[in-house]
Amino acid sequence: MTSARWWGWLEPRRVRPLSPAAIARLEEELGGPLPLTPPVALDAVDVPPPQLPAGFEQRLRETAAVATDRLARVGHAAGKGYVDLMRMRSGDATDAPDAVVFPGSAEEVAATLELCSRQRVAVIPFGGGTSVVGGVTPVRNRCEAAISLDLERLDRLVVDRTSLTATFGPGLRGPRAEARLQARGLTLGHFPQSFELATIGGYVATRSAGQASTGYGRIDDLVHGLRLVAPAGELRAADVPASAAGPSLRELVVGSEGALGAIVEATLSVRPLPERRRYEGWSFETFAEGADALRTLVQAGEEPDVARLSDADETRLTFALGSTGSVAARAGRMYLRARGHANGCLAILGFEGDAHGVDRRRRNVAARLRGRGAVALGTRPGSAWLASRYAGPYTRDELLDRGLIVETLETAATWTRLDGLYRAVGDAIRPTLAPALVGCHVSHLYADGASLYFTFIARADRERPLEQWRAVKRAASDAIVAHGGTITHHHGVGRDHLPWMRDEVGELGIDVLAAAKARLDPAGVMNPGKLLPVDHA
Amino acid sequence: MTSARWWGWLEPRRVRPLSPAAIARLEEELGGPLPLTPPVALDAVDVPPPQLPAGFEQRLRETAAVATDRLARVGHAAGKGYVDLMRMRSGDATDAPDAVVFPGSAEEVAATLELCSRQRVAVIPFGGGTSVVGGVTPVRNRCEAAISLDLERLDRLVVDRTSLTATFGPGLRGPRAEARLQARGLTLGHFPQSFELATIGGYVATRSAGQASTGYGRIDDLVHGLRLVAPAGELRAADVPASAAGPSLRELVVGSEGALGAIVEATLSVRPLPERRRYEGWSFETFAEGADALRTLVQAGEEPDVARLSDADETRLTFALGSTGSVAARAGRMYLRARGHANGCLAILGFEGDAHGVDRRRRNVAARLRGRGAVALGTRPGSAWLASRYAGPYTRDELLDRGLIVETLETAATWTRLDGLYRAVGDAIRPTLAPALVGCHVSHLYADGASLYFTFIARADRERPLEQWRAVKRAASDAIVAHGGTITHHHGVGRDHLPWMRDEVGELGIDVLAAAKARLDPAGVMNPGKLLPVDHA
Repeated sequence: MTSARWWGWLEPRRVRPLSPAAIARLEEELGGPLPLTPPVALDAVDVPPPQLPAGFEQRLRETAAVATDRLARVGHAAGKGYVDLMRMRSGDATDAPDAVVFPGSAEEVAATLELCSRQRVAVIPFGGGTSVVGGVTPVRNRCEAAISLDLERLDRLVVDRTSLTATFGPGLRGPRAEARLQARGLTLGHFPQSFELATIGGYVATRSAGQASTGYGRIDDLVHGLRLVAPAGELRAADVPASAAGPSLRELVVGSEGALGAIVEATLSVRPLPERRRYEGWSFETFAEGADALRTLVQAGEEPDVARLSDADETRLTFALGSTGSVAARAGRMYLRARGHANGCLAILGFEGDAHGVDRRRRNVAARLRGRGAVALGTRPGSAWLASRYAGPYTRDELLDRGLIVETLETAATWTRLDGLYRAVGDAIRPTLAPALVGCHVSHLYADGASLYFTFIARADRERPLEQWRAVKRAASDAIVAHGGTITHHHGVGRDHLPWMRDEVGELGIDVLAAAKARLDPAGVMNPGKLLPVDHA
Repeated sequence: MTSARWWGWLEPRRVRPLSPAAIARLEEELGGPLPLTPPVALDAVDVPPPQLPAGFEQRLRETAAVATDRLARVGHAAGKGYVDLMRMRSGDATDAPDAVVFPGSAEEVAATLELCSRQRVAVIPFGGGTSVVGGVTPVRNRCEAAISLDLERLDRLVVDRTSLTATFGPGLRGPRAEARLQARGLTLGHFPQSFELATIGGYVATRSAGQASTGYGRIDDLVHGLRLVAPAGELRAADVPASAAGPSLRELVVGSEGALGAIVEATLSVRPLPERRRYEGWSFETFAEGADALRTLVQAGEEPDVARLSDADETRLTFALGSTGSVAARAGRMYLRARGHANGCLAILGFEGDAHGVDRRRRNVAARLRGRGAVALGTRPGSAWLASRYAGPYTRDELLDRGLIVETLETAATWTRLDGLYRAVGDAIRPTLAPALVGCHVSHLYADGASLYFTFIARADRERPLEQWRAVKRAASDAIVAHGGTITHHHGVGRDHLPWMRDEVGELGIDVLAAAKARLDPAGVMNPGKLLPVDHA
C-alpha cells in the first residue's frame, strides 16, 4: 500500500537513489559540499491544538467520518510544492486543519459544507494533496477554523462503453482509476507527474494537463458531465458532447480549485487501451530548432501523443543526474558530439494506438525530423523516460535532503512568443539564484503554441528560504507576464500565482469570478485565500 | 453586393427555385394546394416612431455612426428564425430598434454602452442577424428604448502565420473572412449554413458549430484570445494555447449572446487551405446502423471532416425537393432499391487535407463502412451537397411563400442516448403538426456522442401561427430535456430556448450566470430577455 509522506512524496520509494557520481556533479556545479539535512520527526512537528467552535466536532461527526489525530492533521497541512515541503520538513504545521473530514457521499459533502458555512469554518477540498502552488494549504482568512475535506471515499467508477465515457468519483487516484479502466480494456490516458497520488477530482479542479496531453487532450478536453456541491447548492454540467446553451458552466467548475465548491462526480472521455506504444529519443542541435520542428509536426496534424523537448541545459542535467558513468551513456554522448550535437537538445516522442497507425505516424514524423537535421536516438531514451516519468518528486526529496531549493514552474504561449518567453524566464531565474542549474522543456504541443516547463536547483538560503523562493518566483512570473505567457499552464493558481491573477484575467475578470463565488459560497468558506486575491475571497 | 432581405434571406438568390415537381410533391404530402402568400411591402410594415429619450440620438451621433431610417430599423428588427420571418412577412416590425448604431472602434462600442447604461437603453449586439432563436430581437424589458449595435465596421484581420492564428474584428462576415484568409493560403474552416451572412463575432457569441466541425472543431475549439466590451469595462481572455489559471473566462464570453457585452475582437486558429477535398455519398439501410457506423469511425479516430447522416424521411425529402425527375436520379434510386436500401439513409462524408492523407483516410473509412453493409454512392451526392450547403434559407423563403411552417431544431447527446432521443423528438413533433414532413440528420460527431438536427415542414396555421409554433417547439424541447439531450447544440439560447435553461443548467446555474451579468452589465441593458430568464436579465 502506497502512502504519502507528510514531509515529501510517497513511500515506499519506487526509484533508485541518486548515484554518488550525480551528487558529486551537483556539488561541483553548486559550489561545494551538500551535507544531509533530514526533516524533523513527526513528534517534533509544531501542530497547534484544534480550534473548532464549541460542539462543532460533534456535529461534524454526526455528518461524516472525521479524524483529528496528529498524523491526519499534519498529513493535510500542506501540498507538495517547495514551500510546503520546506515548511513541513522544518516541523512547521501551524496551518494544519483543525479536523479532517471524510464524506462518504455527495449528501455528506453538502451537509458538511452547510455546517461549515453556518459556523464560518473554512473548507479545504483535498484530493491527492499534490498541489505545487499552495492549493491545499489551510488558509483561514476570516474563518475561525479550517477543515480538510478529504474526498478519498468518493471512489465509484461507472463506464459507458458505447459512449466511451466513465463517471468517476473525485477521490479515485490515478493508479486505481487506470487499473479499473484497464481491466476493461480502456484508459483515461491522463498521466501527470503526480499520477501516483493525484485524484480525478484534483485533475479537474486544477485543469491538469497530463504528460500525454498532446495526444489524449488536457483534462479540460476530456471532461463532459460534472457535479459540484457548493454551499449554496449543487451545480451540474450536463453529460452531453457539446452544447450552445450559453456560457459554459462546466468551464467555470473546471479549474475552480475548491474555491467554489467540491466536485463530487466527473464524467470523462476514455479510450481503448493502445495496442502499441513506441517512445523514442531524438536530438536537435538547438532548442529553437527543436521547437520549430515540433511546431511543424503539430500544425501538420502529425504530432506524437507525447512530445517533450529539453533545452541544452536540461539535457545536460538529465544526463548528469541519471549518470552512472556507463559505457553506453558515454558512447551515446560521443556519437552525438560526432554529429555536431555536443550541446544538443533531447526530445522524447511517444506514439500510442493501433500498431499500424503507430508505425505510420512515427515514420512520417521521422522523415520530417530527419529533413530538419535531427538525429534519431532510438527507443532507449524513450524507455528510460517512460520508466522514470513519475520519478521527479522522489528525486526532489533527495535534493531537499541535501539542502537545495528545487522548484518548477510552467507557462505556455503562442509559437510566435515562445522563444522570447523562454529566454526571458531563464534570464530572470539565473541571476536570482546563481549558481543554479536551470533547465526547461517543451512538453505540450498545440497548433498555436506550446508549454514551457522550467526546473531549477540551487543551494537553499538556510536563513531566509521563503524570501529566496519569493524572489525567484517573482522574477520568473513577472517575466512570464511581460512576455505573453500564461501564469500557469497546468499547475493551477493556488496561493502562489495569486499575485499575477490580475495580469492574467484583469481586475474585471477577478470581479466576475468573485461574483460567481459569492453566489455559490456566500459565507466565503470554500478554500479561502486561493484562486482569488484575498480581498475578494 | 449581397444584402439581407428584411423579410427573408439574401438577395440576389443563389439557388434554383423549387421545381414544379417538388411543389406538386409537397402539395401531395401536405394535403392540398399551396397558394402563394408573399410578404407585405416595406411601406406597409408597421414600425413605431423611435422612442429614444430626449437628446439621446444626438449624444449617440457624437459617439458613433447612427441610422434611424425605415430600412435600417426594419432590417434590424428580427433575426432569421421562423417566428422572426413570419412576423416580418406579415408586416409586424413593432420590435424594431429605435436606432441602429455602427461603432467604428472598440472605444466607440465602450462609449455607446456607457451612454446606454446611463439612460437604460437596451443594446442588442448585431452581427449578421442570422439568429434562428430570437437572439437579435430587440426586447426592451425594463429599458425605455433599444438600439441595435451593428458591428459591421469592426472588420480588421491580422494573421500570425507562425502560430496559425488570426485576430478578427467581430463584424467580418464568413465569405469576406474566408476570402482574405484564402488569399494567404489559409482557411478558418468554419462553414455554418448561415455562412453567407453570419459574422465572426456572431459565431463566437453563439457557440456556432459549422458544418465541418467534426474535422475543424467547433468555434469553441478554435477561439483563443477574446476581448469583450461590457458596460462595466473590458474583459480580456489571453491569447495563449492553454491555461490552468482558474475557471475559463473565455468560456464565459463564448456563448454569451450579447447579454454580457459586445465581442470586439477574437483570435482564432486557422489552417492551411486543404490541398484536396473529397465529398462522397453512402447509403445505410437504417438510421441506427448509420449512426453506429459513424460512432465506430470517430471512436477509432477515423472520422471524416464532414459527416452528415440523414434518416429515411430526410433522405426521401431531400430527393423529393431536389427532384427534377431526371433519369440519373431515378436510376440511382433503382440501384439502391436493388441493394435493399429502398428506404435507405443517405450519408455525406467529406475529407479535406493533403492529397495523400485524404486518400488514406477515405480508403480506411470505406473499408470500415463496407464491412457494415453500407453502399458507396460515389462523389456525385457529395458534390451536390457541397453545391447546396447554403441553400436551406433560400428554399425556406420559398416554402414560407407557400404558407408553410418550416422550422429546424437541434440537440446533441451521448451515443448511448442518441437513438432514444431521436425517436422521442420525432414522436413529439409529428402529432403536433400532422400532416407534416419531419426529417433528421446527425451532423457533428464526437467521441462520446453526436448532434441531431431536425427539420419539419407543415401547413402553417394562418389564424394562430405563433401558437402552432409554440406547441411544436414545446413538445420537441420537452422531449429533448426528458431524453438527455442539450436544448441546443449550436443555435444558441436566444429567446426561444429560455424556458428550458433551468432544465439545462439548473436554478443555481442561472443564478451564477446572472451574478456574472450583474457585475458586467449592472444596468441590465445588454440584450435583455435573452440567455437568462426574464426575472434575472
